Amino acid sequence: MSDEFDVLILGAGSGGYACALRAAQLGLSVGLVEKGNLGGTCLHVGCIPTKALLHAAEVADSARESSAFGVQATLDGIDMAGVNDYKDKVVGRLFKGLTGLIKSRGITVIEGDGRLTGSREVTVGGTAYTGKHVVLASGSYSRSLPGLDVDGERVITSEHALRLEKVPSSVVVLGGGVIGCEFASVWRSFGAEVTIVEALPRLVAAEDEASSKALERAFRKRGIAFRTGTPFQSVKTTDDGVAVTVEGGDVIEAELLLVAVGRGPVTNGLGYDEQGVAMDRGFVLADEMCRTNVEGVYAVGDIVPGLQLAHRGFQQGILVAEHIAGLEPAPIDPAGIPRVTYSHPEVASVGLTEAQAVEAHGADQIESLTYDLGGNGKSQILQTQGFVKLVRRTDGPVLGVHLVGDRVGELIGEAQLIYGWEAHADDVAPLVHAHPTQNEALGEAHLALAGKPLHAHS
Amino acid sequence: MSDEFDVLILGAGSGGYACALRAAQLGLSVGLVEKGNLGGTCLHVGCIPTKALLHAAEVADSARESSAFGVQATLDGIDMAGVNDYKDKVVGRLFKGLTGLIKSRGITVIEGDGRLTGSREVTVGGTAYTGKHVVLASGSYSRSLPGLDVDGERVITSEHALRLEKVPSSVVVLGGGVIGCEFASVWRSFGAEVTIVEALPRLVAAEDEASSKALERAFRKRGIAFRTGTPFQSVKTTDDGVAVTVEGGDVIEAELLLVAVGRGPVTNGLGYDEQGVAMDRGFVLADEMCRTNVEGVYAVGDIVPGLQLAHRGFQQGILVAEHIAGLEPAPIDPAGIPRVTYSHPEVASVGLTEAQAVEAHGADQIESLTYDLGGNGKSQILQTQGFVKLVRRTDGPVLGVHLVGDRVGELIGEAQLIYGWEAHADDVAPLVHAHPTQNEALGEAHLALAGKPLHAHS
Repeated sequence: MSDEFDVLILGAGSGGYACALRAAQLGLSVGLVEKGNLGGTCLHVGCIPTKALLHAAEVADSARESSAFGVQATLDGIDMAGVNDYKDKVVGRLFKGLTGLIKSRGITVIEGDGRLTGSREVTVGGTAYTGKHVVLASGSYSRSLPGLDVDGERVITSEHALRLEKVPSSVVVLGGGVIGCEFASVWRSFGAEVTIVEALPRLVAAEDEASSKALERAFRKRGIAFRTGTPFQSVKTTDDGVAVTVEGGDVIEAELLLVAVGRGPVTNGLGYDEQGVAMDRGFVLADEMCRTNVEGVYAVGDIVPGLQLAHRGFQQGILVAEHIAGLEPAPIDPAGIPRVTYSHPEVASVGLTEAQAVEAHGADQIESLTYDLGGNGKSQILQTQGFVKLVRRTDGPVLGVHLVGDRVGELIGEAQLIYGWEAHADDVAPLVHAHPTQNEALGEAHLALAGKPLHAHS
Repeated sequence: MSDEFDVLILGAGSGGYACALRAAQLGLSVGLVEKGNLGGTCLHVGCIPTKALLHAAEVADSARESSAFGVQATLDGIDMAGVNDYKDKVVGRLFKGLTGLIKSRGITVIEGDGRLTGSREVTVGGTAYTGKHVVLASGSYSRSLPGLDVDGERVITSEHALRLEKVPSSVVVLGGGVIGCEFASVWRSFGAEVTIVEALPRLVAAEDEASSKALERAFRKRGIAFRTGTPFQSVKTTDDGVAVTVEGGDVIEAELLLVAVGRGPVTNGLGYDEQGVAMDRGFVLADEMCRTNVEGVYAVGDIVPGLQLAHRGFQQGILVAEHIAGLEPAPIDPAGIPRVTYSHPEVASVGLTEAQAVEAHGADQIESLTYDLGGNGKSQILQTQGFVKLVRRTDGPVLGVHLVGDRVGELIGEAQLIYGWEAHADDVAPLVHAHPTQNEALGEAHLALAGKPLHAHS
């Protein structure tokens, strides 16, 4: 440890560890500072455990609805200890894999709270480590609202929600974004009464308006209540739980309040300011190569303004490693990062919403086409409803793909290639999709957009 | 009906109706002859109903294994009447959609047994219809072996298997191809004892050898017995069921014998021979534009040698319509047609197997890379095992993608684009896959193939 590292990384979440792995592979020496566990939010309290809960929810729904498929099964209940055990095993196995990988690549892991103490220096527990390059990757935390105190018992964040010992009878979910909708979906599947409170006019408001509407319709059918366009006002804890007052004065009572109003950057008190790193409301500003304003200091992941998604962090981490190694990585197109909400039904997208496309190119330059999953055999077999919506520039490439329906999150792999390769409908139309699959709906939508609808009513 | 049709199609299965829809859309007049129901084998006794059974099987497995996910559910049994009702509803709904579509496009449907009575003439119930072009699309039937009589009770084909009133206690499945493996998977999920007998050395023998091995391993774990490299010899019906004797003399007893040894072309007695259409062992020979040797007569779907898949039929039907309309459709690359076996786990592929690639290009020109789903978060959440295997020409495009694992059939949409667009690993590697999805495994495999493995041990 006498020498300085080629790359010294503060934070071993998705962005940090991806950077470490790629840098080590490129022959650079790497120091990776982490106060918690390798893997960060995504692996331990984010993507992975929530998707495990969502799969348990799918198993519960499947049993509950089994008679519709001729299967005689009874849903007797949810054993939260068992759910947590399953979830923890999945996390544990992936954690073990990651730990082994980090070790096998010769990366030096430095455990403890790190702080930027020089433009190339991070201090951990009194020891100063230096790097030719420093990468800030300190991640994010569950935010709350002013005056809304999280007590971890009645008023909780997603991290507490991952450790519940029983299924709540009723929940108010504050925030109808991805995290709020995913937990609402899980708890409803587990039998709870759920009400989502969202200040914006619609659920998953970052998605295309058609996707929001379809999700709202599906949630309504599932008995998930939601109050959109409804700002939160206050919460009181009661003997039985919480009483949430929303703007206008209505009071909603429940056993729990989940605060899912977004994630803030973990940057406070880490010395970034003092070293002159340019910031904006706690976020670290970075250019398309993830460089901050301080020479040799990079930033990746949730601390950089933009989509707070693990796969964006991975890609940024890889990019930074390659940039440091003197390769010339292509900048990441933010719109090309796929988004998936893993609720029942799922919502997924890549590229621009129709509104964004119109904003960027003018209404007369934009066309959209919606293919209903009612015409898709596999979706009928799964008994799911939804659509594939394509947005394109008139006679130009596909600018956006929007999907709603159970399991459609897997179709976003194909969709992001179409977007990423700037494909035209005619490039996709002649290729053969397997029948009966849900991805066939993507094929049919492109056939229709190319002017040759097969199973679509034209 | 006094005038001749621009296009006269014999058979309204996938190939025939796709041709009819596309031809009508291109402004051609279309006559569509069908003795059964619009939609043919795929919709009524093939893809759709079998995949409905497979989904019911998934629902049963999910309930059976629910405790592994913390869900307290009990599988009490399978109500075959309910399964059939569900399946019939799915078929019925798609049939209604298709019927409406055919009607809305102004296609003339001619019901009855059609026979080719002239090079441009099809006779149905004594009435002769003529077409400027004739398209043969008469489909396929479940074959048997010489000396093996299907009685529809003890010795059945897949069509009988779709109408069973109860779950058999035990089944011998003759044939370890796609159909045999799918039914074996369904019945095992429904609680039956299943033994597959296959003359070839492995299950799904058309797939890459690695896929066969993985499926065999998974089936063994599920308690599905199989005897590969074991030709069938004879069957006797007994009071309780059947006694199947295989080469070497072993006898396997079961309640039912499913004969799944492939599908033969429905061409006998339809007048093709008499009109001079060139044939080979009952199949109709056609060129890359699906033209037979007889001017103006085309052939599509399962009667043409090659993969007997609905989506191949669709694509051929579309191609023929466009060719007749004077467009210049690109020929279909047979290897670009994706294949999916919807068993638990699924097997899917597009392009060449490693052996085919080596055969075509020489061993020194071919590389392969296998990414284990053990490193894929979503697959861990689903608790499924399998892999993504990529085959490429050294420093060249991806020539084959092979997948094993639950739900991987949906990844083939992305895979067929990669194959169809002749992408190199470097074209896929910089694009961002969503985390945690199964399609991310495709992304990781391409990263690794491009020399920058992320989560793969290198």
